[in-house]
Amino acid sequence: MKKIGKQTIQFDLYPQVIAASSIVGPHEKQGPLGDFFDQIIEDGYNQQNTWEDAQIKMAEDVIESVLAKAKLSQDQIDYLLAGDLLNQTAASNFAAEKFSIPFLGLFGACSTIVEALIVAAIMVEGNAANNALAFTSSHYQATERQFRTPNEYGDKYPPYKQKTVTAAGGILLDKKEGGCQIREATVGKVVNLGVKDAQDLGSAMAPAAADTILQHFKDTGRSPDEYDLIITGDLGKLGKEMLLSLLNEQGFEINDTYQDCGVKIYNDQQKVGAGGSGCGCSAAVIASYLLPELMLGKFNKIFILGTGALLNPTTTLQKHSIPAIAHGVVIESSGHVKVGIGNQNSRQILGESINNKRSN
Amino acid sequence: MKKIGKQTIQFDLYPQVIAASSIVGPHEKQGPLGDFFDQIIEDGYNQQNTWEDAQIKMAEDVIESVLAKAKLSQDQIDYLLAGDLLNQTAASNFAAEKFSIPFLGLFGACSTIVEALIVAAIMVEGNAANNALAFTSSHYQATERQFRTPNEYGDKYPPYKQKTVTAAGGILLDKKEGGCQIREATVGKVVNLGVKDAQDLGSAMAPAAADTILQHFKDTGRSPDEYDLIITGDLGKLGKEMLLSLLNEQGFEINDTYQDCGVKIYNDQQKVGAGGSGCGCSAAVIASYLLPELMLGKFNKIFILGTGALLNPTTTLQKHSIPAIAHGVVIESSGHVKVGIGNQNSRQILGESINNKRSN
Repeated sequence: MKKIGKQTIQFDLYPQVIAASSIVGPHEKQGPLGDFFDQIIEDGYNQQNTWEDAQIKMAEDVIESVLAKAKLSQDQIDYLLAGDLLNQTAASNFAAEKFSIPFLGLFGACSTIVEALIVAAIMVEGNAANNALAFTSSHYQATERQFRTPNEYGDKYPPYKQKTVTAAGGILLDKKEGGCQIREATVGKVVNLGVKDAQDLGSAMAPAAADTILQHFKDTGRSPDEYDLIITGDLGKLGKEMLLSLLNEQGFEINDTYQDCGVKIYNDQQKVGAGGSGCGCSAAVIASYLLPELMLGKFNKIFILGTGALLNPTTTLQKHSIPAIAHGVVIESSGHVKVGIGNQNSRQILGESINNKRSN
Repeated sequence: MKKIGKQTIQFDLYPQVIAASSIVGPHEKQGPLGDFFDQIIEDGYNQQNTWEDAQIKMAEDVIESVLAKAKLSQDQIDYLLAGDLLNQTAASNFAAEKFSIPFLGLFGACSTIVEALIVAAIMVEGNAANNALAFTSSHYQATERQFRTPNEYGDKYPPYKQKTVTAAGGILLDKKEGGCQIREATVGKVVNLGVKDAQDLGSAMAPAAADTILQHFKDTGRSPDEYDLIITGDLGKLGKEMLLSLLNEQGFEINDTYQDCGVKIYNDQQKVGAGGSGCGCSAAVIASYLLPELMLGKFNKIFILGTGALLNPTTTLQKHSIPAIAHGVVIESSGHVKVGIGNQNSRQILGESINNKRSN
């Protein structure tokens, strides 16, 4: 591996995605990607007594699901890398506790799954690990009461607010041949352009996403049209428009290839303000939808930006604006179909729609 | 680099410590290591309006101080790696915001500085970076009110409770010749033996420290006497005794070479219960004291265990016990004295006491 430009790491051996899984709540199941998730929980409690425990259980179950799809036991996994929105990344810590696997805790808010993929890729490529499992989770009710107010208070839901997705996603990287390959990573800087409204995180994150995307083009010498898809973690509808406009100001036009996980996960009939957000949002969309699309050949090369609003309620009350960060990974199809990626539906529905361009 | 055993990474190129700095509060200045810290803040407010801002300023200043000691500008630093005890690792995020340097956020509670050193070492050794700056911070008052109760409430201070240290520490790793070298890293697992008392974190962390130490000996085939010093981040007086007893049960006797940063940072006259703790504690002790000792030749090879209690107040109220983790790094003297490590006092006082065994 080597560093290219100021913020980008280029991998030579291309750490491979050999398995990925996702678990979502019933509301996310009703969205346009509903058929592609691996497991659906019945309700917000997920058979537990608290929302926090519901999230912990989702995180544990997504690890189990990745292991099952990869046909590996926990003894065969070298490292877990994770973080989440609960204070002290509690859901990740408690989930990791269930497994006898070394654990590195990360925090990048909703950018965490991409940050975890980057560190995992560096470890696998650099021989520090044979494989590494990145996972994250988020939970609507647990997040709302921690960061804003409990839902029971009936706080106003402005149209620019995103709904924290109840979801968990896990992705296993390995040296051996997988369905998709990590080609490059661009690590973001903390960017803060002055947004102080904890309901408007899309606006806080868009400048960070623009910063990392522009730096990525500079570092790699590429232009946007070299990607089949550029997708942000979860800027939501407002942040998505802001990002396009920020990039346009710099002479970059990505409208045709640009999407956002937070916009994709819900449909317009679902009342979710500006779309979805939360660590689990991009993790579940990447695991259930983007990786199968890549593997099945709809896309050859995509650039995924994890975007995180580093919102801290105390400093927000102290009148600080909200810092944000965006980390990017370039993932390419390896041309191999792997059973650990996607589910029966993604193979069938996506596969047919892509006309079975590739198969093994 | 390569993985040896189940949890240990062995570095071939030995990422080098080229600079390290520390900032502490007035109470820490009064302790036995007082002369060795690089900067002392006047009081808990550190010329700011809030404790959180005081901590952020310490974190910013410790980065500046490391840069100054390394004679490098921020443009010459590839990555910042950091985390801290404020929710969402806020102090690290806001400090990173001040610099135009890519940032990876981590969370391992009081183990964070060692976790950051491990990821930094992997990045430097693996060619993902030429250098990487690991930093952490903690603040007594900000931590108490977030995790337990504000100090103004006058809560009882049991003898087994540790005092969160007001401190920040930063350590810069590079490929080029430094004063100390990172030789190995052992990444810990999350361990939870059932402690539910948020005041008794030493007891929660000791089993995690024992687990990582035993695994390290197993992975490397070494015995404790191959180290001149084995030092835990901050188990405090009670946790220190527990660790010795847990290791004794497994046939390992490290009493002669074992110390604890949380015990070392205060003297017996300072009323701090079982000693110090907090992300900044081990970071400041490593940066100001352990690295100069190594560089000046008092020790040749030491094993530092970052120990973190992954305490989350919500899950503790929900009757969960407290998970903990310990990450270890082996650091060896390179035989070269570097101006970026230590201060005038450490050179003079430590240097004389070590009889100038080595000098360049």
